[in-house]
Amino acid sequence: MEEVISGGITAVPGIKATGVHCGIKGNKKDLALIYSPSPGVAAGVFTTNLIKAAPVLVSYRNIKEPVTRAIVVNSGNANACSGERGRKDAERMVELTAQHLDLDPSQVLVSSTGVIGQFLPMEAVEKGIKSACENLNEEGGTLAAEAILTTDTIKKERAYTFELSGKKITIGAMAKGSGMIYPDMATMLAFITTDISISKPLLEKALQESVKNSYNLITVDGDTSTNDMVIIMANGMAGNPKITEEGEEYYKFVEALNFVNKEMSRIIIRDGEGTTKLIEVNIKGTTSYQMGRRLAMGILNSNLVKTAFFGEDANWGRIITAMGYSSREFIPEQVDIYLEDLQVMKDGVGLQFDEDKAREILSAREVKVFIDLKMGPEEITAWGSDLSYQYVTINSSYRS
Amino acid sequence: MEEVISGGITAVPGIKATGVHCGIKGNKKDLALIYSPSPGVAAGVFTTNLIKAAPVLVSYRNIKEPVTRAIVVNSGNANACSGERGRKDAERMVELTAQHLDLDPSQVLVSSTGVIGQFLPMEAVEKGIKSACENLNEEGGTLAAEAILTTDTIKKERAYTFELSGKKITIGAMAKGSGMIYPDMATMLAFITTDISISKPLLEKALQESVKNSYNLITVDGDTSTNDMVIIMANGMAGNPKITEEGEEYYKFVEALNFVNKEMSRIIIRDGEGTTKLIEVNIKGTTSYQMGRRLAMGILNSNLVKTAFFGEDANWGRIITAMGYSSREFIPEQVDIYLEDLQVMKDGVGLQFDEDKAREILSAREVKVFIDLKMGPEEITAWGSDLSYQYVTINSSYRS
Repeated sequence: MEEVISGGITAVPGIKATGVHCGIKGNKKDLALIYSPSPGVAAGVFTTNLIKAAPVLVSYRNIKEPVTRAIVVNSGNANACSGERGRKDAERMVELTAQHLDLDPSQVLVSSTGVIGQFLPMEAVEKGIKSACENLNEEGGTLAAEAILTTDTIKKERAYTFELSGKKITIGAMAKGSGMIYPDMATMLAFITTDISISKPLLEKALQESVKNSYNLITVDGDTSTNDMVIIMANGMAGNPKITEEGEEYYKFVEALNFVNKEMSRIIIRDGEGTTKLIEVNIKGTTSYQMGRRLAMGILNSNLVKTAFFGEDANWGRIITAMGYSSREFIPEQVDIYLEDLQVMKDGVGLQFDEDKAREILSAREVKVFIDLKMGPEEITAWGSDLSYQYVTINSSYRS
Repeated sequence: MEEVISGGITAVPGIKATGVHCGIKGNKKDLALIYSPSPGVAAGVFTTNLIKAAPVLVSYRNIKEPVTRAIVVNSGNANACSGERGRKDAERMVELTAQHLDLDPSQVLVSSTGVIGQFLPMEAVEKGIKSACENLNEEGGTLAAEAILTTDTIKKERAYTFELSGKKITIGAMAKGSGMIYPDMATMLAFITTDISISKPLLEKALQESVKNSYNLITVDGDTSTNDMVIIMANGMAGNPKITEEGEEYYKFVEALNFVNKEMSRIIIRDGEGTTKLIEVNIKGTTSYQMGRRLAMGILNSNLVKTAFFGEDANWGRIITAMGYSSREFIPEQVDIYLEDLQVMKDGVGLQFDEDKAREILSAREVKVFIDLKMGPEEITAWGSDLSYQYVTINSSYRS
């Protein structure tokens, strides 16, 4: 149904963006700006970490306003654990952006990612905001997508269109991921733009629903950062009858949004720090989303499971072990486990299986694990990565 | 107060043991036996994993009996997820040991560690039990300590003496650790012998108290295995007036037991899979053991924290981040963090600090982190390890 088109956030009519280098990082782009000339509505989901970075606090306040017009993002410095001065710096980023774009500061959101506990070099940031405001354009999405990266190795952007009430709706997205991705989004930023016309409460509801089924079901290393946020901004320019209640139109939008966010989630995992494999865990027969998620995340966050996948070793014992310490709600004696179509456990007991076939399955770049709990009608799909030497290399020297 | 003596479990008068090779593993010792000719009392703490290996279920039942005389342990095969057949094999190990030693089967405990989901090679195990029973001796502790190892690189045994009511009490211990150590003990076996005279209920209470402050405060990779157990067996041969109620004598014993178990815990962590550093986290100013433990384990299980220590990078932002997603009970604005005596955070805000000094501190093989929450009178000390290339190597090919 959804059609993939080229570009990212500026594939959406009426959205301008850019990315510049201002000097927080050595020589890479480090400041991105997204702008909607027409008044948009926005919704956001923010980190659940008790320690929230200054930009998270500022954006959490501003997103409650009826209109959102711009989002300014820096990379290279998280502006977290930076106290009162950090809070003032985040406010200053908002004010400056508003001033240059002739907006009310309450219409601007701010986001940061990078090292924790250092003050922002505000002189550089101020110059960067001015330059970004002057360079906004309708093809700038890719520059913005580049400017929000940290240890990411590829830029992450996608755009899709779908039909609604005879109108073409576009959704564009960019994200930053890599390590620290779990739970409830971690060192993970995603910015989504769309031209759909929708009320703010329904945009919020759609985003929450979609995050639950995408970004909240991925994990690289189980850490949740101080800075995570997912923001969606809708400018209404598609001209569809404004969605103001749940109904067919709303559900079609949620479906499209799920498609976008699940795809972005998989891109993030594929580019997880040191990832050599994407592991997909499908759990069926659970009695609730929460139970399924707890089990899937328990498996995908287990270093023993992750290293076994890296080593292409069919050590399914580690999968059932991780399940056993992640939940007390399932019945061990009725668990079935498959690696792709190869069954390795039946009713809680290990099976003799074809090791050659297992090796072949595990040598692929993407491996699916299927688990049946035979308890209820719910099912869940989550994504994670293996744990490689490269993960250790990247993360043992991130700061320097 | 406690005096370290040489040896391990057989340093305790009246305890016999041995370790033999029976053929579960290629050419290493793989079966250990501990035996008390005089009737002993025992206490145990078992894995909290919902998936419990067959020997855990059997020992959990037998340890409720008033007298325990022997413990048979195999390595190389966990006898977990092995269904009805596994259960019968564990019972058979108990019966055979009882038969050879002329005991009631209810007086024998059984323990296994190794790969999950494979059936025990019972012919080899049966031969091994016979051979072990024939070779029991009062200097066999070290052989037993060798026979319970899996990926451990060093054998783990210690013995201590202390005075009680004018009598010399001896405590001996052996353990097996490496990866998967958390929480509530994981792929971790510890067997403690002592000649103290104590009632079974107080022995149980002392063990539980001590495990809480030792094995339950260590972590290598956050996984909890299907097979963990800590068993203590007291044969009463020291001749002290039998401890039957809490009082000075009981507290002295708990203190000595804490000393032993904390030391064993540190040995386990130092030999954790691929460990290059021991990280000690001291949290003071907490309001409860549970809160302190949650925070300490959150820090010590964070792959980002662990890789930063491996890289000797003073990235304390990852410490406060891990705290923030592990608990919602503390007040970020009043947290102080020190690496040894170098303060890096004051009242929730990062400090400029001497990077040379930080590098020097982090280059040591043991690093202490001090955290003050300034909330309550409780404090806690926990131990963990860094995450190195070697961890990935060991765990990506354990099964093969």
